[in-house]
Amino acid sequence: MAAASIAGANRECLRRIQAATALLTDVRPAREALPGMGPHTVLHAGPPIAWARMCGPMRGAIIGACLFEGWAATAEEATALAASGGLQLSPCHHHQAVGPMAGIVSPSMALFVVENREGGTRAHATLNEGLGRVLRMGAYDASVIERLRWLNGSLAPLLAEAVRRAGGVDLKSLVAQALTMGDEVHNRAKAGSALFARTMAPHLAAAGGGELERALEFLAATDHFFLNLSMATCKAALDAAHGIPGATVVTALARNGTDFGIRVSGTGDTWFTAPAPEVKGLYFPGYGPADANPDLGDSAITETAGLGAFALAAAPAIVQFVGGTARLAVETSEEMYEITLGEHETFKIPVLDFRGTPVGIDVRKVVETGITPAIDTGIAHREAGIGQIGAGLSRAPMECFVRALDAFAHGRGVV
Amino acid sequence: MAAASIAGANRECLRRIQAATALLTDVRPAREALPGMGPHTVLHAGPPIAWARMCGPMRGAIIGACLFEGWAATAEEATALAASGGLQLSPCHHHQAVGPMAGIVSPSMALFVVENREGGTRAHATLNEGLGRVLRMGAYDASVIERLRWLNGSLAPLLAEAVRRAGGVDLKSLVAQALTMGDEVHNRAKAGSALFARTMAPHLAAAGGGELERALEFLAATDHFFLNLSMATCKAALDAAHGIPGATVVTALARNGTDFGIRVSGTGDTWFTAPAPEVKGLYFPGYGPADANPDLGDSAITETAGLGAFALAAAPAIVQFVGGTARLAVETSEEMYEITLGEHETFKIPVLDFRGTPVGIDVRKVVETGITPAIDTGIAHREAGIGQIGAGLSRAPMECFVRALDAFAHGRGVV
Repeated sequence: MAAASIAGANRECLRRIQAATALLTDVRPAREALPGMGPHTVLHAGPPIAWARMCGPMRGAIIGACLFEGWAATAEEATALAASGGLQLSPCHHHQAVGPMAGIVSPSMALFVVENREGGTRAHATLNEGLGRVLRMGAYDASVIERLRWLNGSLAPLLAEAVRRAGGVDLKSLVAQALTMGDEVHNRAKAGSALFARTMAPHLAAAGGGELERALEFLAATDHFFLNLSMATCKAALDAAHGIPGATVVTALARNGTDFGIRVSGTGDTWFTAPAPEVKGLYFPGYGPADANPDLGDSAITETAGLGAFALAAAPAIVQFVGGTARLAVETSEEMYEITLGEHETFKIPVLDFRGTPVGIDVRKVVETGITPAIDTGIAHREAGIGQIGAGLSRAPMECFVRALDAFAHGRGVV
Repeated sequence: MAAASIAGANRECLRRIQAATALLTDVRPAREALPGMGPHTVLHAGPPIAWARMCGPMRGAIIGACLFEGWAATAEEATALAASGGLQLSPCHHHQAVGPMAGIVSPSMALFVVENREGGTRAHATLNEGLGRVLRMGAYDASVIERLRWLNGSLAPLLAEAVRRAGGVDLKSLVAQALTMGDEVHNRAKAGSALFARTMAPHLAAAGGGELERALEFLAATDHFFLNLSMATCKAALDAAHGIPGATVVTALARNGTDFGIRVSGTGDTWFTAPAPEVKGLYFPGYGPADANPDLGDSAITETAGLGAFALAAAPAIVQFVGGTARLAVETSEEMYEITLGEHETFKIPVLDFRGTPVGIDVRKVVETGITPAIDTGIAHREAGIGQIGAGLSRAPMECFVRALDAFAHGRGVV
């Protein structure tokens, strides 16, 4: 394809990503909200993967989902069910959804429904559980399951009613505000979470009911609550830019903890994969790199949309969580301008004098410059059942981009 | 006094400022909360001033207070009452209180009660009304008075009950968090306000009542709500460091819109004054410098404690409100290290790699370096009855510091 056509296709990609809106309109069970969700479908983060190759935390989260759904009474029963092929495993990304870390979604789990009315897409994500021993990090003990029951059975319907009373919630505006308040809305989502909590509080009060106090307490205590909302915001924007012939813009960076995969607009639904890299970061007391699972989760959808580590300069306080210095935060954003096609017209970084975030990762630029996308992320223990042990920074593997560019060169799988 | 004694006194000052705690424990009417509050006492911002010399916005706010208290039925009646000496006018600072802009406190107004249990002090501030046409900016129309009635009659008792249920609220922790979220907690208090709103929401819900929804709506919409709380936090810390013999540390910067005044630890209750400077900043549409009142308000207590413009580097997004560039924000903080004695051990600036905020303004350093304290602040219209017309940056007048140093040199008024 001629360079001019590629440039035009990429411009359209970039336009659609930036024009995307993100209105939170509902909170509904996955079985109702998602296309292709069968009675035993279990969605997971990253590119497709079978149970046999799944990493520990993803297996742990699937065990937890089986316990939560009542498909198994013990971890052993759940493991036997999954290993025997009794579950329909499929990536979140194939069902208009994204999931942080293990990214497990089972039919009874409630999902935020985020509409990009400009682009005609819709994206979904679960409710964030908080940090530590949580399902998405591979933990599945009784406290994890009890919390899931409350989140999905009590908080979700209350939030759904509040969202309806609010007439929807403009998440794009909240992301833009959070970027001026020290968030990069991936691994630091404290401002977004606080803004969401105070925005919803009067509508939750109007909805009322016996769970109001506990709901407001949970929102007040959960600094990562906005992460899942920012992920759905990004997925809805990027899906609208997916499938444009000739476009070399990345529309998904995703990891299942075993493989790292990317999808590119002009190569449609093909995943270009490589082994998931390690995450360099800070560990909770008692843990170290030997305990860490490789890079995991759909949350790199934020980086794909120019947020997360791409907006790290906006979030200098994150270095206390992921390591490094304030200078590293600025340098990471600056480097990402080298591999992107534009500067976001709505999402701005105050410390760079309101320069737009670097957006529109071009596979050609990644290969030409040798600079791979930076990602800031959580670290899960490599064994099932333990949970989060730290947070840090990783880099997407170059191999994925080389493979994608090679597909373009040979016309393989192009849309 | 010997240099060694001064150094020791200043070290003790600095220790007390940093060791201060700030627990919000109650919300009570000024007549109950404050010492020396008579039935017609009206407190105002800045150093002492008589009605005849008061600026327009301060007169406007006093008119509003008279209408609110029912002491007058019209602005003319209120003006006649004030001009005839019918009110006991006194600075907030003389009554354990601080007030933003005009800083008017009348007996029925509810005050936050903030306790510094470490230092044995207590400080108070009114509830923030929001921006625009508000009493503290000199407006007094019916909407202003109606809002005051609701704030003091409905929101205040509900907050009081919520604060009691919460067992107090740790404001020092909220200030520290807000500094990592783009606030300098003076003219940008959005993060502090959001954190306060989400912290209080479950306790407000527990307190319940018919005003809950409106209370949560007001907290969700009022980005300056935390300002008054951060001011009381700073006042409680600085009062504990006041009155130490030999100490050359500034314990108050305050403006009444006509005069700028400072108080210094080692010279006790003396005010060293000079004409209030102009504020350079950005104006709301339709207004300009010719409409602006000179610098006004007790809110520079935040700068006195090392926050506000001293922590401007933490709040790059504020330049959209007060003017300038992100670089100016960093440079302003860097310059303030030249006139301060320490770096705050609890309040940190992420973008400066968590360097403590510059704290402990030394009158000697101000005079020696020629650098005067920077202040970021609101701009009120110079006429009574209009309100806020912009925001910007000002500098404390050098004359105040020269006079203070002169008092030390001649042993005048030293404690």
